[in-house]
Amino acid sequence: MPGLGSVRALAFDVFGTVVDWRSGVARDAAAILGARGLDLDWGAFADRWRALYQPSLERVRSGERPWTRLDDLHRESLLQVLEEFGARSLSEAEIEDLNRAWHRLDPWPDAVEGLGRLKRRYVIATLSNGNVSLLVDMAKRAGLPWDAVLGAEVARAYKPLPESYLTTARLLDCRPEECLMVAAHHHDLVAARSCGFRTAYVHRPREFGPAQKDDLPAEHGHDLVVADFLELADALGA
Amino acid sequence: MPGLGSVRALAFDVFGTVVDWRSGVARDAAAILGARGLDLDWGAFADRWRALYQPSLERVRSGERPWTRLDDLHRESLLQVLEEFGARSLSEAEIEDLNRAWHRLDPWPDAVEGLGRLKRRYVIATLSNGNVSLLVDMAKRAGLPWDAVLGAEVARAYKPLPESYLTTARLLDCRPEECLMVAAHHHDLVAARSCGFRTAYVHRPREFGPAQKDDLPAEHGHDLVVADFLELADALGA
Repeated sequence: MPGLGSVRALAFDVFGTVVDWRSGVARDAAAILGARGLDLDWGAFADRWRALYQPSLERVRSGERPWTRLDDLHRESLLQVLEEFGARSLSEAEIEDLNRAWHRLDPWPDAVEGLGRLKRRYVIATLSNGNVSLLVDMAKRAGLPWDAVLGAEVARAYKPLPESYLTTARLLDCRPEECLMVAAHHHDLVAARSCGFRTAYVHRPREFGPAQKDDLPAEHGHDLVVADFLELADALGA
Repeated sequence: MPGLGSVRALAFDVFGTVVDWRSGVARDAAAILGARGLDLDWGAFADRWRALYQPSLERVRSGERPWTRLDDLHRESLLQVLEEFGARSLSEAEIEDLNRAWHRLDPWPDAVEGLGRLKRRYVIATLSNGNVSLLVDMAKRAGLPWDAVLGAEVARAYKPLPESYLTTARLLDCRPEECLMVAAHHHDLVAARSCGFRTAYVHRPREFGPAQKDDLPAEHGHDLVVADFLELADALGA
């Protein structure tokens, strides 16, 4: 781990990096909408819902609308996606249940064991755009052993705004260079690095489904490039 | 547990309620200052340091000074206490080490087992005036299995200001009446209740040392009055 000896805290992106959002959303959509007699392309449903994610964040980041937590943005996007897919007349309880699919995402197979190893040597914290209660529900269900659940809601700034990274580092009492951002997304790592964080790219070739086209991880000059959290723990001596 | 069926999250005071600050501070002061050849009344040293706690918080609560995290308030108070006890000429490293005694406090004997049981049924979070990094260090060392480390620093308001309680409830996506404040201090519970929280008083008869005079726990009308976290878990069916 060249030059990473000063790292004390690992800050994790969550959606796509720790958990498999696409399969989990597709599964819960199939269960909840399927019970209504709908038969859709559930992967496409998940993809469309996720496609509205960045535009919804951008309206908050830009100041077009005031701070709004992710659960509420997800719900607004869900109503649009349901309309687009012709899934009308769901009850409020069904909509709320489906919106909470994001609280019930499964971790990638290596995540729990890898985090357990990393936790013994480092502070491990979320640095996610998910709201605290979403991340707490997810962690309790999946057994994710976070030391702290931090990120956008606590900072009141969505990634990749610098405040999201810098507030998380400050709360962990770390200088930015003492924090290693762990993510499967280059844009997140590039933003973290511009705040002074060290960066670890985790390759998640199935995040966007079987047809995913990989971009090459090595081209962005991250401190570490790993296949999963076990390889990350190996690389960090944890 | 009459009327507590709607509770989803337990919010814990930490200093005195979860951990034994007096013994821990006295122990570390004895080790660090003792190595300098000092022989003081270590319990009195801890008491004096703690006596400066509320006045230091009050200067922040009142707006006399801007937000300052507890580690920094503790350090300012420590310098005064060292002066009062005639412990001069400590190195910066020794002062910093002693200040971090608050990160190394031991839990009461029932705390880890009790929290483990309660965590299976409820969200368990800190609602402490301690800063996040202090609470994370303490939890890692002591094995306190928090779902979330929240409280004054995240809210940027020290207890008993209402914002400290209400921000914690909001981040947990709970209405105030869905939160049970757990503390060994009536003033904390009374403030939480005035925000709509339910309250559980835990009797910690040794928090202030062997000469502690108990105030009677029953007189404030808390929802629960328990001897320790195991009795709390019993009372809540956890």
